Amino acid sequence: MSLIVLGTVALDHVTTPSGAKKDMLGGSAAHFSMSARLFTPVHLVAVVGGDFPEKHLSFLKRKGLDLTSLKIGTGKTFRWTGEYKKGDLNTALTLATELGVLESYVPEIADHQKELPNVFLANIDPDVQMKLLSALKKPELIGLDSMNLWINIKLPSLKRLMKKVHLFVANDGEARALTGESNLIQAARKLSTMGPKMIVIKKGEHGVLFYSKNTMFSFPAYPVDKVVDPTGAGDTFAGGLMGYLSKAKKVNETTLRKALLYATTLASFNVEGFGMTKTATLTTRDVEGRLKTLVKFFSIT
Amino acid sequence: MSLIVLGTVALDHVTTPSGAKKDMLGGSAAHFSMSARLFTPVHLVAVVGGDFPEKHLSFLKRKGLDLTSLKIGTGKTFRWTGEYKKGDLNTALTLATELGVLESYVPEIADHQKELPNVFLANIDPDVQMKLLSALKKPELIGLDSMNLWINIKLPSLKRLMKKVHLFVANDGEARALTGESNLIQAARKLSTMGPKMIVIKKGEHGVLFYSKNTMFSFPAYPVDKVVDPTGAGDTFAGGLMGYLSKAKKVNETTLRKALLYATTLASFNVEGFGMTKTATLTTRDVEGRLKTLVKFFSIT
Repeated sequence: MSLIVLGTVALDHVTTPSGAKKDMLGGSAAHFSMSARLFTPVHLVAVVGGDFPEKHLSFLKRKGLDLTSLKIGTGKTFRWTGEYKKGDLNTALTLATELGVLESYVPEIADHQKELPNVFLANIDPDVQMKLLSALKKPELIGLDSMNLWINIKLPSLKRLMKKVHLFVANDGEARALTGESNLIQAARKLSTMGPKMIVIKKGEHGVLFYSKNTMFSFPAYPVDKVVDPTGAGDTFAGGLMGYLSKAKKVNETTLRKALLYATTLASFNVEGFGMTKTATLTTRDVEGRLKTLVKFFSIT
Repeated sequence: MSLIVLGTVALDHVTTPSGAKKDMLGGSAAHFSMSARLFTPVHLVAVVGGDFPEKHLSFLKRKGLDLTSLKIGTGKTFRWTGEYKKGDLNTALTLATELGVLESYVPEIADHQKELPNVFLANIDPDVQMKLLSALKKPELIGLDSMNLWINIKLPSLKRLMKKVHLFVANDGEARALTGESNLIQAARKLSTMGPKMIVIKKGEHGVLFYSKNTMFSFPAYPVDKVVDPTGAGDTFAGGLMGYLSKAKKVNETTLRKALLYATTLASFNVEGFGMTKTATLTTRDVEGRLKTLVKFFSIT
């Protein structure tokens, strides 16, 4: 079943120990889509500016994404400039943020998109996330991601939104910041009382923890021995998770475990190249091959 | 097959968010033994002082350990005073260390112990570890643990020792400090060129990574939602690992994976109580039960 994602489409300037790249296609919704498209049709809801390169637009089209609700606004495309230092590739240092068209963005979608059953609210202002959610008629599976910025400056909005979603995806730092619990199991338990029944905590190189009232499980990350650029890994992860669940058409322990294996696999490809160079060229066969290796990696025999 | 372990037996004063305890039985060899005894006969090689409480001695005896080479030296027992702060139970803050009898300790073992096939050099001065190793006639499996202190002040001794061992156990911080590599896979690879063919990197709440030239695998940690006292978790882990391998009588990928599952299981019990309160009362049945839960925890279906 189709999946609709709201988030950012950005121009990223990224410096890592492997090099520096300018004007790369990035943003939460773009990374998410590049991953989710491998499982299901994806509708991208975002805004870019008049300066958004034609090559990026045609690239997104070529990847099969529905761009009906990719708005080209008046102003500049959202830009993010970040750096990862040697020795701590888990932490992005934000050097500059230019909101541009994001500043006044109100998401709008086409009538046929209002009926879509699966939605992911990728990282963007929670008030904007709420607007998209309100426009959907009967979403069956609602996933949500956020970031420390919104926890700091828009906590009431984020909390209101959390009450309306089924699945919440957070990294370990966000989970701790939102709950005040340092133990991740306790943090996940607390998050699950704030609205979302299903909690996914991403631990970067240490893998993932899933928590719901009825089950809890964990997988290690795929072993990547050279991280080139982790930007978008979390969004790529969420794309695999939501993409697989949308394809599976049901959410239960079996599909959730499988979905998180795909999510882990996709995220591992993402970090091996700058921007979405790796995920953009993936085939289903690449993904299945690595998933097998991942499963063997933590097999008990 | 029997297992001989050299390390410390200490009196620990520990403060954690769950409380404070004084004069607890602790030390690397004690924690290791309390875990390994569940798999195989264990010979404990260590020194304590004249002030070592009789109740701790009789406790160790009751647990079935061979205390032939537990020397009662002239002077005071090694004492460690440490604290774990709320929010970071992974990091022990050392408040005081009183070496006492450790200062001049030279390990001596009985003739029949010199023939033992499996040895673990638990955390203690690497020069002392080397002396014990030299006293063994034909060790078949040699495991080694160390700590940041020795990496900082006795690196040449530690490196000499590493050349002589088969299996090296380190936590993530130690692996990074020893190799200068922040990526743990690259760190493990480098460690495996320094002598030990088998590298085990303990990641605390994030589980374990095993690396050798031929294989690499990882397991998440057992989910403990209330860590009471992590002191000795690494030693307890190593006890499960070496204990199981000694019992299995062979080292191959199958036994290594199994051994690390036991190690993970044992460590999870350790952190649930102060000192060795939890591991001291464990039965094989407790361990098998939790191991099953652990395996289900990261099962793919």
